Amino acid sequence: MSGYMHEPVSGIIAYPVTPFGTGGGGIDEDGFRQVTENLLVDAPAAISFLGSAGESAYLSTEEWRHSARLGVETVAGRVPVILGISELTTAAAVAKARYAEEVGADMLMVIPIAYWKLTDAEIFEHYAAIAEATDLPIMAYNNPGTSGVDMSPALLVRMVREIETVRYVKESSGDLNRMHAIRMLSDDSVPFYNGANHMALEALAAGASGWCTAAPNLLGGRPQQLFSLMQAGDVDAARSLFYQLLPVLQFIVSGGLPTTVKAGLALRGLAVGNPRLPLQVLPDAARTTLKGLLEGLAVEPVGR
Amino acid sequence: MSGYMHEPVSGIIAYPVTPFGTGGGGIDEDGFRQVTENLLVDAPAAISFLGSAGESAYLSTEEWRHSARLGVETVAGRVPVILGISELTTAAAVAKARYAEEVGADMLMVIPIAYWKLTDAEIFEHYAAIAEATDLPIMAYNNPGTSGVDMSPALLVRMVREIETVRYVKESSGDLNRMHAIRMLSDDSVPFYNGANHMALEALAAGASGWCTAAPNLLGGRPQQLFSLMQAGDVDAARSLFYQLLPVLQFIVSGGLPTTVKAGLALRGLAVGNPRLPLQVLPDAARTTLKGLLEGLAVEPVGR
Amino acid sequence: MSGYMHEPVSGIIAYPVTPFGTGGGGIDEDGFRQVTENLLVDAPAAISFLGSAGESAYLSTEEWRHSARLGVETVAGRVPVILGISELTTAAAVAKARYAEEVGADMLMVIPIAYWKLTDAEIFEHYAAIAEATDLPIMAYNNPGTSGVDMSPALLVRMVREIETVRYVKESSGDLNRMHAIRMLSDDSVPFYNGANHMALEALAAGASGWCTAAPNLLGGRPQQLFSLMQAGDVDAARSLFYQLLPVLQFIVSGGLPTTVKAGLALRGLAVGNPRLPLQVLPDAARTTLKGLLEGLAVEPVGR
Amino acid sequence: MSGYMHEPVSGIIAYPVTPFGTGGGGIDEDGFRQVTENLLVDAPAAISFLGSAGESAYLSTEEWRHSARLGVETVAGRVPVILGISELTTAAAVAKARYAEEVGADMLMVIPIAYWKLTDAEIFEHYAAIAEATDLPIMAYNNPGTSGVDMSPALLVRMVREIETVRYVKESSGDLNRMHAIRMLSDDSVPFYNGANHMALEALAAGASGWCTAAPNLLGGRPQQLFSLMQAGDVDAARSLFYQLLPVLQFIVSGGLPTTVKAGLALRGLAVGNPRLPLQVLPDAARTTLKGLLEGLAVEPVGR
Repeated sequence: MSGYMHEPVSGIIAYPVTPFGTGGGGIDEDGFRQVTENLLVDAPAAISFLGSAGESAYLSTEEWRHSARLGVETVAGRVPVILGISELTTAAAVAKARYAEEVGADMLMVIPIAYWKLTDAEIFEHYAAIAEATDLPIMAYNNPGTSGVDMSPALLVRMVREIETVRYVKESSGDLNRMHAIRMLSDDSVPFYNGANHMALEALAAGASGWCTAAPNLLGGRPQQLFSLMQAGDVDAARSLFYQLLPVLQFIVSGGLPTTVKAGLALRGLAVGNPRLPLQVLPDAARTTLKGLLEGLAVEPVGR
Repeated sequence: MSGYMHEPVSGIIAYPVTPFGTGGGGIDEDGFRQVTENLLVDAPAAISFLGSAGESAYLSTEEWRHSARLGVETVAGRVPVILGISELTTAAAVAKARYAEEVGADMLMVIPIAYWKLTDAEIFEHYAAIAEATDLPIMAYNNPGTSGVDMSPALLVRMVREIETVRYVKESSGDLNRMHAIRMLSDDSVPFYNGANHMALEALAAGASGWCTAAPNLLGGRPQQLFSLMQAGDVDAARSLFYQLLPVLQFIVSGGLPTTVKAGLALRGLAVGNPRLPLQVLPDAARTTLKGLLEGLAVEPVGR
Repeated sequence: MSGYMHEPVSGIIAYPVTPFGTGGGGIDEDGFRQVTENLLVDAPAAISFLGSAGESAYLSTEEWRHSARLGVETVAGRVPVILGISELTTAAAVAKARYAEEVGADMLMVIPIAYWKLTDAEIFEHYAAIAEATDLPIMAYNNPGTSGVDMSPALLVRMVREIETVRYVKESSGDLNRMHAIRMLSDDSVPFYNGANHMALEALAAGASGWCTAAPNLLGGRPQQLFSLMQAGDVDAARSLFYQLLPVLQFIVSGGLPTTVKAGLALRGLAVGNPRLPLQVLPDAARTTLKGLLEGLAVEPVGR
Repeated sequence: MSGYMHEPVSGIIAYPVTPFGTGGGGIDEDGFRQVTENLLVDAPAAISFLGSAGESAYLSTEEWRHSARLGVETVAGRVPVILGISELTTAAAVAKARYAEEVGADMLMVIPIAYWKLTDAEIFEHYAAIAEATDLPIMAYNNPGTSGVDMSPALLVRMVREIETVRYVKESSGDLNRMHAIRMLSDDSVPFYNGANHMALEALAAGASGWCTAAPNLLGGRPQQLFSLMQAGDVDAARSLFYQLLPVLQFIVSGGLPTTVKAGLALRGLAVGNPRLPLQVLPDAARTTLKGLLEGLAVEPVGR
């Protein structure tokens, strides 16, 4: 463990995609390092591997471990490393948490996945079991649209209060009321992060400690710039930048992050393979749209 | 007509409730003037009579006209007067628009009401017919939760473009994406106002020109203060104030504005009668909650 | 009062549209009588004037009274007459209930309309006030899609139990679970009627006492035939008939009953004017579709 | 392969739960056989292992294979065996399909699972790849509430038309309109099965070829009896039976099938272990409720 994470991170938490080799192969190590370095150029507050954008849920256990190792090695302490765990069973989540600690991650981001709807008690025990298995701080990640689990602000705040290492919340439901409730229910004591790209501006206004986003893969330092403008109180400039970025943010969300971000990286000259089936390559017409959006923002090729 | 409204208003548009006499009577003129003066103390950018908070939809035609006359007379040119029109039939809406112009209103705020769902063409023609009948500028008011009509950003922007006197949008759906879309679809040329109290902070971040709200009835100048802080770029102070006000804002929205604002005015020493049945007086337990919230904010009695 | 309604009606309750004179005029008396006679040909279990299909909510008070009088006179005791009351205020609903009793209606069908959301207590008192004002039996009508008021099965059953003359429920939410709950919560003691045309077959399977529908305006005796087949246990024939009728049922629901049924009556040779603005005449393309659907069912011109 | 399935099955398709050994162990073979025999007593039209009720999504690959083998062996040709495949990736689904064919299954029931939303093209290719890998007939299973994938009637019918071995649809969305649309879009040529227990009566009225249900685990032959009554046109008796069963059907659906059916089997004297964490054992209060419901129906202990 790198010794990071005594303080909550503040700013951009960048989410890389997971490059696959051609022909349906496993993790593409070279691509993985390039994607990571591309994000590190802009000095994010942290990097989170194996998130939604990283197709975490689609990887075999061995691939997940491979990515976890590679991620920690590649970052090599330059910024904190967060690893995402999205599992249907508690046993599998616990095993990954232990592995993450072994390989030197700094934090876990945990999202329960539902086939059958989970009660609050079931969700609580899921987190408690993971917390019991590792000393790593945990970010509880709410994203009902992908996971099928909708954790209420009351539950999230209760878990932070009652499970020692559950410390942060990532809110991706896109509902501002959740952020308001988390802040009010916790007397502003629970750092929450915005995971809904299309409302990043307003989440920062609402008091989010940071923005968890795959957008830096395509937009480089612009998300960080938005964060800094809001911190400096330059709301007009922040708003102006946000509306410039919004078409890209909306595009990558609505088309699915792995699909669209991989397409965008290819457009920037960094081939990272396809998303994993059934996810398909971005259709031609949509790629043309994305190309136009990136050109409109004068997005440059990935640095060499 | 007072000659106002050549420029879009910027800031707080205050919404009075409509006081009724005891015993199911009609408009209480004294109460009406007191409610209005209580709002004028804080110099709002405009006052809008006969809005949702004003129980516009529950008034007889004669009561609506009475309120319209009284409103214009009481304000007496100190700020612009906007009159709300919420009608099921186009004929009734047109008749009110004409009357509003006769009595000297400065602007109309028009919301179509649906029993049967309306097509975009039907909504468009409803606005076009009203615009044809009067020279007053029109604010198109979208509030699907009360009216049963949900006007898309595309339709709203199209109406502003194609109907000369439809110039502004009030968005009360509570969906930030609508505000984003209105701005992007119109190249930032359509002034939009936030009508969703519980997200006023973020709507201002998103670029709302103002905040349409009944909250000043209970909170005095605080909403204006929030607006000013955001304009000055003091996001931290604005956020801090917003979270102080938020419990009251959430309370008055969730309990229905006429019911809760009338109860709150009574707590401030200004008796304005009951809302009209079937709307009932705020239950005791809720009134105690509201009392606590107002005391927590050190809200003072109405101007003495 | 005609002395009907000691027993719950069983079968088809037919809903006429309200014909308007040309040039935006009021009730077209001749058209009104023709529309009524067209329904009486097939001997429905009852006729309900001034329902959703009858544009009840769009009429002036005087027009509503005119229609009420005309309806009772025209039917002249041949079948029970039900009058629909859809009002925002309790006072207006009570006044109409009294008038309905005066002119000799047999039953009221009452739907509260919401601008501001109503609590269960507010809804209950709305019905109680109407029941207090008249001896007529009352059918509580739930149609959240048009009225903005969603009455739960628990509330509906409680009102039938606690308000003596509230005796029946018309469920138009389109949710089978509501019908199940009404039956289970009341130990099968509350007769409920289906108001969702697109699931008439299944509502009858679920135990609905009847089907409230404007479809007989266009389909003549076919809805009655469906009811009879289900009563006789000929599920296969009922299903076969239902799927034949379903395209028309879906069409008239999705396009709005006043708009589509008036268009369909015109196609059958009975001109009944236009729906009231903002509701527009059915567009040409849709009318062609409807024409094809009616021809496919060999629907004949209105009887001469 | 057993040679079954040249004709669509008609009637009850019974879904066993998957018994686990105590202490978090794997498949309990004895329990598995007992659960299966308990279903075979009532001669269902088919048995479907590894469905939602069978916790298919929570099993390791090896456990899934173990269950598949055991299922085919235990049934031993007495009725057709359907195996459920619920996978996030196409590769994993294809591998299971091949294995199912090897061990002698008669049919596959395939549900795509989404983390990222799938386009219609992605869903189509998922099914096409599975169909390419095996000769087994395929039932496309739509259950958006558990899987996060909502397949429209148009897509389902198109897949049946264009992918040779995709022949049937199981609809668990609980939306009657879907069943209507499947029948109408396919000219009644696509057999569809109801997977929504709480509307079994009405789905049969609507023309479902059968009822896919875990209810026989607890209710024995009663679901089959409901099916037979509807086939015989005894709607009144079918309705009466349905409302008797409905509290149990609602209970097992709302509490999650693995949790509630395992609890119910234990109450019937057949211990089958716990559901897999994070799914917890049914809480005491709910178990008491379930006990009362089963006693009210005079449900007997498992086969003695």
